[in-house]
Amino acid sequence: MKDFPGTPGTFTALTLRVLQFSFAAGSIVCITTTPGFFEYTALCYLIASMGLQVIWSFGIALFDAKALITKKILHNLVLVSLFAIGDWVTGMLSLAAASASAGLLILYFRDLGKCQSDCLKYWMSVTLAFMSWVMIEISSLIMFWLLAAG
Amino acid sequence: MKDFPGTPGTFTALTLRVLQFSFAAGSIVCITTTPGFFEYTALCYLIASMGLQVIWSFGIALFDAKALITKKILHNLVLVSLFAIGDWVTGMLSLAAASASAGLLILYFRDLGKCQSDCLKYWMSVTLAFMSWVMIEISSLIMFWLLAAG
Repeated sequence: MKDFPGTPGTFTALTLRVLQFSFAAGSIVCITTTPGFFEYTALCYLIASMGLQVIWSFGIALFDAKALITKKILHNLVLVSLFAIGDWVTGMLSLAAASASAGLLILYFRDLGKCQSDCLKYWMSVTLAFMSWVMIEISSLIMFWLLAAG
Repeated sequence: MKDFPGTPGTFTALTLRVLQFSFAAGSIVCITTTPGFFEYTALCYLIASMGLQVIWSFGIALFDAKALITKKILHNLVLVSLFAIGDWVTGMLSLAAASASAGLLILYFRDLGKCQSDCLKYWMSVTLAFMSWVMIEISSLIMFWLLAAG
């Protein structure tokens, strides 16, 4: 398999995973510190999706860190296939959750003009979720490219 | 470039494009026949996104149909790159628009329990948008695979 920045076990891959993890964790923190978020299904779905993202990215970051320390190459077909599928699934779920929450926030704060004290926290959470999605999308495209290039 | 079902100029590719086009057009028809949809930003975004999807899928369907009739192979690097980028962008926009609209509908019809006479049409529109996204995602993965496999 080809070796380029972002492939498993490289410093770029580890950086991407850390960013995914940090943005997703930040999104959860922002939303869970607001009262009443659990009344909205879309926001609960955002927390669930970002929670999955945190677990996935943290797990793969450990793999990458171990590979970097032991200088082991992680270009195994089974492993890359697993990473590609996992990244694709979590990426789609993150984008869907961030978009659903953004749709809800636009309705509340723009269409209906009900911007309460916590609206900044809600927007911060959705922005972080989108940033986490951008990072997972980059990882996902790299994995898929690596898999297809063989 | 490799030749497998779904690559440009094949019958499977044409079928996928026709399905994308039909689902996206159906989604627009469902939502535009309801009164007051323009009050909601997320629904307007869904129409814009599905409109782009209709234009894109119809254009590529014409390319595929012409290639099928003239038995010409469309495995050109520039053309496949263009298809891959276009599919990826329209796919992301479709998923984001469908999710944003679903978030809005879940808030209105489930969280707030305000299901009016048009709620079935709204749900139908969002379902068709998601079905259109599934089709464009399949096309997108095929194009990306073709590009990476070289």
